[in-house]
Amino acid sequence: MHNLIDGKAIASQIHKETADQVEKLKSRGIHPGLVFVRVGEDPASRAYVGMKEKMAEELGIASRTLVLDSSTSQQQLLDLIDGLNHDSSVHGILVQAPLPSHIDERVVFSMVSPRKDVDGFHPVNVGRLMLGDAECFRPCTPAGVHELLKRSHVPLDGANVVILGRGNIVGKPMASILMQKAPDANATVTVLHSRSRDITSHCLRADIIIAAIGSPHFLKADMVKSGAVIVDVGVNRIEDPSSKRGYRLVGDVDFHLIQPIAGRITPNPGGVGPMTIAMLMHNTARAAHQMH
Amino acid sequence: MHNLIDGKAIASQIHKETADQVEKLKSRGIHPGLVFVRVGEDPASRAYVGMKEKMAEELGIASRTLVLDSSTSQQQLLDLIDGLNHDSSVHGILVQAPLPSHIDERVVFSMVSPRKDVDGFHPVNVGRLMLGDAECFRPCTPAGVHELLKRSHVPLDGANVVILGRGNIVGKPMASILMQKAPDANATVTVLHSRSRDITSHCLRADIIIAAIGSPHFLKADMVKSGAVIVDVGVNRIEDPSSKRGYRLVGDVDFHLIQPIAGRITPNPGGVGPMTIAMLMHNTARAAHQMH
Repeated sequence: MHNLIDGKAIASQIHKETADQVEKLKSRGIHPGLVFVRVGEDPASRAYVGMKEKMAEELGIASRTLVLDSSTSQQQLLDLIDGLNHDSSVHGILVQAPLPSHIDERVVFSMVSPRKDVDGFHPVNVGRLMLGDAECFRPCTPAGVHELLKRSHVPLDGANVVILGRGNIVGKPMASILMQKAPDANATVTVLHSRSRDITSHCLRADIIIAAIGSPHFLKADMVKSGAVIVDVGVNRIEDPSSKRGYRLVGDVDFHLIQPIAGRITPNPGGVGPMTIAMLMHNTARAAHQMH
Repeated sequence: MHNLIDGKAIASQIHKETADQVEKLKSRGIHPGLVFVRVGEDPASRAYVGMKEKMAEELGIASRTLVLDSSTSQQQLLDLIDGLNHDSSVHGILVQAPLPSHIDERVVFSMVSPRKDVDGFHPVNVGRLMLGDAECFRPCTPAGVHELLKRSHVPLDGANVVILGRGNIVGKPMASILMQKAPDANATVTVLHSRSRDITSHCLRADIIIAAIGSPHFLKADMVKSGAVIVDVGVNRIEDPSSKRGYRLVGDVDFHLIQPIAGRITPNPGGVGPMTIAMLMHNTARAAHQMH
């Protein structure tokens, strides 16, 4: 298991850095505050927000969750966000997706003040990320993958990177981050997706493959060059009658067969997952810092 | 020359569509207005703005150019833009780059109202483009390349596209446009740049190569697969004592040796150049339409 990229360990390190920053801010009288907004009672959303709240508490970040009924209108939600935008004790606002179908996520994410957009989903932050503006908020999952690679000393400069998936939450911002003209980036990025051809040959050329395509064990051993670095962002639910819950979670990477040939590889769970929360907390401390 | 993509002809077609739209807007009492802001007396900027003004006039768009002294402060320029943002007779604002070195282009482009940002450089529009929002303003040159490809019936769905160059004006937004999950996109995009390795082998796999790297005749015949579609965005000045001006303009593509093996190819000049102006006029008519 010597080639594992230990997401838990790297996330802990980032949490420690964030806790230190929070302490410094507090010594200057600044108390970082994070508000979660959750609409309806989706069990996964409840669990995610719970985990994030707990971590915020551990790091000394004041967090609270506003739970709205699933019948809340879009306008009510926008008004609530407007209030949080103007509340100086709130430095970060996270509206947990998915939202009920009668609410347009795009409109809601655009309502969050870009300065409090710790999720990095506001178009201004998406645009600034693409334009190479280092001061923007980066979406937590791709920023977390970037930190994993950097802190594992995976060479990015000139590396051939294949990103599997072009979602707005992972694939696209991951491409934005890695293609920048910047010391920690400078990669040659190819984005593959459901309409791509020659997927295997693209993957076989890659020095780094980031799988965020949402398909269980999509990446197989015969698609991976020996020594390639593999990052598994996938979280897929597959039926499993032997499990108490009736399902289990698997990644986009056929880990057991790929690990022996990979240079480095993230476990899943224990790889990217912990990094998403770590970057959220990092962004929140940063938002508090920037606002003062 | 049967494989040429005739940028002039396609641009004329778009101009005709824009002129029709302008006429319709006028019949509803809406007079599209475009303001150019030019700082200093850069000869190339003066020429570009002159061409754009002339075309606006031909299409019935009311345009004017505000010329500021090169000593204008950033704040004075921002105040001027603020005034234009609030002027309801102005539907499009174009601040001609490059700006004098004491002015931060990023700040200036961010000042233009996203609703009047016909150049598509405001971070909100850059972000919305990346997020797949069809209602945003697309930067004129990559949008023009996209129209060239679409109107020449070049298949994009699943095509392997290589973009040479990762600039904010062409390379990056070109990638954003072509990688979208959309009927006129769905391409597999690889962005190459100065730090990329294996450039030749990347190019040899490409069904479409878009060269926007700013290096004279960078793309050679031995980098092109037979039948590939080649788009040359480059405008490079090279010394030429035999020319009256002492230089001539050449593209990023070694046209004469590549044309015989390419499936389709843009001439340069006469390919992408006319499309940039065509998309600017298109964006202006659209801005006027959206504002009313």
